[in-house]
Amino acid sequence: MAQTEHTVGGGVQLAPVNKVLRLPLPAGNRYTFDSLPLQCGGLLGPVTLAYETWGTLNAEGDNAILITHALTGSSHAHDIERPDDAKAAWWNLLIGPGRAFDTSRYFVICSNVVGSCYGSTGPSSIDPSTGRPYGMRFPVITVRDMVRAQRILLEHLGVRRLAMVTGGSIGGQQALEWGVAYPEMVQKVIVVAATEALTAQAIAFSEVGRQAIMVDPHWQNGDYLPGQGPGAGLAIARMLAMITYQSEEAMEMRFARRPARSNSIPAPGRSVDLGDRFDVENYLYYQGESLVRRFDANSYLYIRRAMDLYDVSEGYPSLEAALSRLRSQSLFIGIRSDFLFPAARVRWLAEQVRALGGDSTYVEIDSPHGHDAFLKEWQFMTEALKS
Amino acid sequence: MAQTEHTVGGGVQLAPVNKVLRLPLPAGNRYTFDSLPLQCGGLLGPVTLAYETWGTLNAEGDNAILITHALTGSSHAHDIERPDDAKAAWWNLLIGPGRAFDTSRYFVICSNVVGSCYGSTGPSSIDPSTGRPYGMRFPVITVRDMVRAQRILLEHLGVRRLAMVTGGSIGGQQALEWGVAYPEMVQKVIVVAATEALTAQAIAFSEVGRQAIMVDPHWQNGDYLPGQGPGAGLAIARMLAMITYQSEEAMEMRFARRPARSNSIPAPGRSVDLGDRFDVENYLYYQGESLVRRFDANSYLYIRRAMDLYDVSEGYPSLEAALSRLRSQSLFIGIRSDFLFPAARVRWLAEQVRALGGDSTYVEIDSPHGHDAFLKEWQFMTEALKS
Repeated sequence: MAQTEHTVGGGVQLAPVNKVLRLPLPAGNRYTFDSLPLQCGGLLGPVTLAYETWGTLNAEGDNAILITHALTGSSHAHDIERPDDAKAAWWNLLIGPGRAFDTSRYFVICSNVVGSCYGSTGPSSIDPSTGRPYGMRFPVITVRDMVRAQRILLEHLGVRRLAMVTGGSIGGQQALEWGVAYPEMVQKVIVVAATEALTAQAIAFSEVGRQAIMVDPHWQNGDYLPGQGPGAGLAIARMLAMITYQSEEAMEMRFARRPARSNSIPAPGRSVDLGDRFDVENYLYYQGESLVRRFDANSYLYIRRAMDLYDVSEGYPSLEAALSRLRSQSLFIGIRSDFLFPAARVRWLAEQVRALGGDSTYVEIDSPHGHDAFLKEWQFMTEALKS
Repeated sequence: MAQTEHTVGGGVQLAPVNKVLRLPLPAGNRYTFDSLPLQCGGLLGPVTLAYETWGTLNAEGDNAILITHALTGSSHAHDIERPDDAKAAWWNLLIGPGRAFDTSRYFVICSNVVGSCYGSTGPSSIDPSTGRPYGMRFPVITVRDMVRAQRILLEHLGVRRLAMVTGGSIGGQQALEWGVAYPEMVQKVIVVAATEALTAQAIAFSEVGRQAIMVDPHWQNGDYLPGQGPGAGLAIARMLAMITYQSEEAMEMRFARRPARSNSIPAPGRSVDLGDRFDVENYLYYQGESLVRRFDANSYLYIRRAMDLYDVSEGYPSLEAALSRLRSQSLFIGIRSDFLFPAARVRWLAEQVRALGGDSTYVEIDSPHGHDAFLKEWQFMTEALKS
């Protein structure tokens, strides 16, 4: 049966299969349950979820807010010791007493998704049937699987009803999926910078990143040894992703054609500079290297794929049939300059929900910072969330 | 001194350093000259240019049209044996008697750029100082170098004045450079889907593609052996480039989220499919594989870099100083859905030229097909060119 572990930075051991996964696992809790039936078939088990909570659950179990993280995020949405440091946790300034996610009134929960490498079961976890890391023997997981696992965790925590579920990007896909899969459990859904399904262009970018990981000889079909992960490939995938998380406008403001001040950051490949380096190149190298230090390449492959595969209508007769299941209030937040989840598509989705009789609102964040604005524009986000 | 070779499919030998460069070199002519002084310093020599011509040069030597090709293009802009086959040559339907580039009136020339692999001197050519292919010992070349080499070829051909110079993408950068560098030689400049300098975002995409080539273990710092080129890396670079050559709109119309009909096209990396393949992924694999069969990876690195490095103002006190050198009529053609060279930036450039007293016109092609529209939208292109 299910077992619980409350530990700090410990809990179920992850195999250190990626040299570059140096950061300590975030402080937090772990909950392990026997098995999770998967959307693509089969069972995964046992499954551990790492999670953190802030605030107190009420006796009715209905004042919970579930926050769902993006691709390379973790359960560390808020840092109770450094609540005013924007970089200490990924939605740090939105969570706390009196903030958009008010911990004096709500019990706020964030759990690391299945497939990730921040304490939850993923490709770098030990496969109990072999005693070795899953690697690419990990099953294909979907947004629906992530949400199902979260629901099991919420039951364990005594949550009977969610006052709100929200997240951005693949976190937004999870929030939407919550509202559609478990309408009776959700009072309010806030979908940030996400849509009902990715565009062909976004899938295409996704696949280029995956191929860059898989062409790195250190990938070894996913069975990389400790200290030998596909760091260069993952860095290249991240470089590409960073472009799609921003916008032409933002990159022009920030970098334009300014030359790099130094060549001290190594490029991921066995690289030869051809003429002078541009600052934007140095920036991308830095971003690539930073992710490699904190994230597992196989987890990246699996979670990114879950984004591509997500289609809220899957298993329903139509998109309308899926969306008309929503009973919660829903708020859709688009970002004007987002080109991964274009604002026009987020708006369209909000309109579809309203046309089906749903209680739906659309708010657009007028930021030049592209998709990533939901992790940067604290003022805009606070205003949008309170609307 | 300079020597000329008129051969079909032969001429100066290129070392077969890329297994995948299977296509025969296009039929055409070769011209070899001693040396080319380079913008970044130093001399390259001897230099061979592969070129083709259509129509007849008049006695005054002033009815020539120079057509400049894009990144992976060649001198084969027109196919005299299959003039109505859109796929037989890259601007085939625009060239010929009575067409936009009228060979009954003009002497039309297209030469393969320095740095390429279609008969002109590039990284896969033999370095006379070592007897081995240049590889990454090939010097950094720029758009200005390409144009200087073209000018030497035109002198050899007896061209005294260009009635027109035109091309798209890096070909458009060359056309602009022609007008600024040699204003007395050019009567009309047509810049298609190109600007005075790439944006930070475009440089960023460019660098991700290069890194994908360089992370491929078969790249070997550019010294790949015959049969062992970085095919997977080049394919990934091409996959990414193909996304940037199109548009979200076009990819949505063409692929949306349709599943692949088969998994018969291998992915470039040692790939594992995660769930069902999308059609857009198959398309990208196909495009990647197609380029690998016909193009050299080191040439790709060098020419793509030349695009990044191009800034028409370099060496002049300002952009205005550079643009005010233009004495030709100039036509700027932007593509509505282009996100590599955004239409707004092409329009801005045209307006700058006009504001400086130049004879400048802007035409926008209302196509959803993105950057590549200049290689596809024959009707639009014909209309724009005749305007």
